[in-house]
Amino acid sequence: MVTPARRDLRRAQSIGKAREIGVEQQWNRRAFMMAAAGAAAFAGVMPAEGANGLRLTPGGGSITQVSGLRVGHYTDTRRPTGCTVIIAEAGATGGVDVRGAAPGTRETDLLNPMNMVEKVHAIVLSGGSAFGLDAATGVMRYLEEKKIGFDVGVAHVPIVPAAILFDLGVGDASIRPDAAAGYQACKSATTAAPQEGNVGAGAGATVGKLYGAKRAMKGGIGSASLTVAGATVGAIVAVNAVGDVLDPATGRILAGARTPDGKHLLDTRAAILAGDLPNAMRPGTATTIGVVATDATLTKAQAQKIAGMAHDGLARTINPIHTMMDGDTIFALGTGASGKPGNVMLLGVMAAEAMAIAVQRAILAARAVEGFPAAVDFIA
Amino acid sequence: MVTPARRDLRRAQSIGKAREIGVEQQWNRRAFMMAAAGAAAFAGVMPAEGANGLRLTPGGGSITQVSGLRVGHYTDTRRPTGCTVIIAEAGATGGVDVRGAAPGTRETDLLNPMNMVEKVHAIVLSGGSAFGLDAATGVMRYLEEKKIGFDVGVAHVPIVPAAILFDLGVGDASIRPDAAAGYQACKSATTAAPQEGNVGAGAGATVGKLYGAKRAMKGGIGSASLTVAGATVGAIVAVNAVGDVLDPATGRILAGARTPDGKHLLDTRAAILAGDLPNAMRPGTATTIGVVATDATLTKAQAQKIAGMAHDGLARTINPIHTMMDGDTIFALGTGASGKPGNVMLLGVMAAEAMAIAVQRAILAARAVEGFPAAVDFIA
Repeated sequence: MVTPARRDLRRAQSIGKAREIGVEQQWNRRAFMMAAAGAAAFAGVMPAEGANGLRLTPGGGSITQVSGLRVGHYTDTRRPTGCTVIIAEAGATGGVDVRGAAPGTRETDLLNPMNMVEKVHAIVLSGGSAFGLDAATGVMRYLEEKKIGFDVGVAHVPIVPAAILFDLGVGDASIRPDAAAGYQACKSATTAAPQEGNVGAGAGATVGKLYGAKRAMKGGIGSASLTVAGATVGAIVAVNAVGDVLDPATGRILAGARTPDGKHLLDTRAAILAGDLPNAMRPGTATTIGVVATDATLTKAQAQKIAGMAHDGLARTINPIHTMMDGDTIFALGTGASGKPGNVMLLGVMAAEAMAIAVQRAILAARAVEGFPAAVDFIA
Repeated sequence: MVTPARRDLRRAQSIGKAREIGVEQQWNRRAFMMAAAGAAAFAGVMPAEGANGLRLTPGGGSITQVSGLRVGHYTDTRRPTGCTVIIAEAGATGGVDVRGAAPGTRETDLLNPMNMVEKVHAIVLSGGSAFGLDAATGVMRYLEEKKIGFDVGVAHVPIVPAAILFDLGVGDASIRPDAAAGYQACKSATTAAPQEGNVGAGAGATVGKLYGAKRAMKGGIGSASLTVAGATVGAIVAVNAVGDVLDPATGRILAGARTPDGKHLLDTRAAILAGDLPNAMRPGTATTIGVVATDATLTKAQAQKIAGMAHDGLARTINPIHTMMDGDTIFALGTGASGKPGNVMLLGVMAAEAMAIAVQRAILAARAVEGFPAAVDFIA
């Protein structure tokens, strides 16, 4: 085990509890007070320093702070696995950047700024590897029932881009999110701050997988948001990486591959660079997937650029990332609810930051499942 | 000024001196000894910890450790500005990833894996904004005189991709690297470790530009290499970013935008997120450009993937990066001199790491010019 930092653990646990009982407003009030005091107008990047250098990212809202979005999880506790849907009923301009080498996606080509469709109605993030793409079928059914979609005269065709992650190594690989799972995720979608950790697309997520499942740790799903100069950017991400997850403010690893005895963090980057490579590296067995969204009005090209900059948030918190074993994919949405055009310079910086916070929140909210310890257990 | 860390400053200066008088071998010997002792077989990522938390990256070779490459600078001291050429006389498989929104490039389309030409003969990095693309003309002339190029029967056409950075804000903007500058860079190219700091494409480079030139600091050019499992990856980069440069192991900012009085580091990321945005942000006034290279045999698609992963090295050391004001571009080369096929998983991790070290070396080797203090002065 890493040296104890029990104060931080308690803090992490109380954060988890605060989220569960719906007192997210505490953090919003704190953010407001900091802004009023002339400090940074974002809670999530203000560190809570504790013993042993552990820096937790205590709050900062969630993607549902972006007006025009609802988020729902479906969690299949049998494995666990699950899916998460981000619904923009009024439509949102969409973009995507696929930076991992082993992606599993649906409806990403239409997001190319050259292509015709301008608005998407939902994004699906799912476990279950490529099988999990079926979740989008259920999301389309839900939206069609509400007559939400691209109007082609004879029907409304819901535009539902999707990306999956590989979690088949956790539990029974024959259980995967399907169309019914996607439909259920839609039914549970609200504008409240989404649950984090072992839920939805993060239910079966794990990290630090380069040296095999026996040395990996639990990943999860996390969310964050920032509001700067009247624009809000939110992020949600299911962290399921071949690499380790770290706090970029200190370089400290929060979760990742463990030493062969399972008792210590290995430091995957240092191990690779010291020539400690696994005999077999199985491609496509990881993947981190997420969404950044803003209430600003975006063009498709702007959305694509912001999705690209959000990947820098992954690069800063996950190492290695974007490998041959990861299919890392980030979508960007502009709901336009603020009625203001986007400043892409600002929104891109905010997207990278929100994504970096959401990654850390995913890991700090994760809880152990059979064979996969979580950061909060391991660091204590 | 930031709190003193004079021991680190002296260390930085002695590193600079060692490089100048050509005793780079010292570091190689140190790297070897560490490897022999069972430590990581890479010098550059072993930190030299010092007072005030400053961590220098003391060595780790340079891009010319990659067999099959020669590197030359041309520095025009009048402004200063300049260009840098990386020559692969026998040809190298090439790839590129353009991640900044304001690039200036030449011959990048042929690097698309779908397109026909397989080998490039040199890469040019140049100051002078888009005018600096002319440096490639001189490099082509030099190579044609040596009958190096793609054989089209009636001539050898040298394949010379190039990228430029914006440094016209330093000195007389009418002075730019031209064809003669590119030719001179070729004439000076050797297999020795290239000079770092205010030379070549890094001569006029500056960083921390979001709040204008008066609050920026000096950037430069840096290089690094790693050897792991028999494969060598080197990087060279001219750091000329709108963002700040930091040490990802500690989160500490090494150089960047200063407070309005010019006396302290501002922390551009925190300032942006606190809503401190300049009234006018001029697009295209920054850009970090570089090359990663390996002695492994690569396909063009593999080279492109490795160039992409190398951008994670920029994301970890420069914040913000890949903005609307940057044209950040990284080329990748596979010389094939080792005769061994590349493991892209490994090479990509090495490329990100080598790039991250090279960025820090660029900043630590930079020296002040009129109006632009350097990290080594500022931190002391």
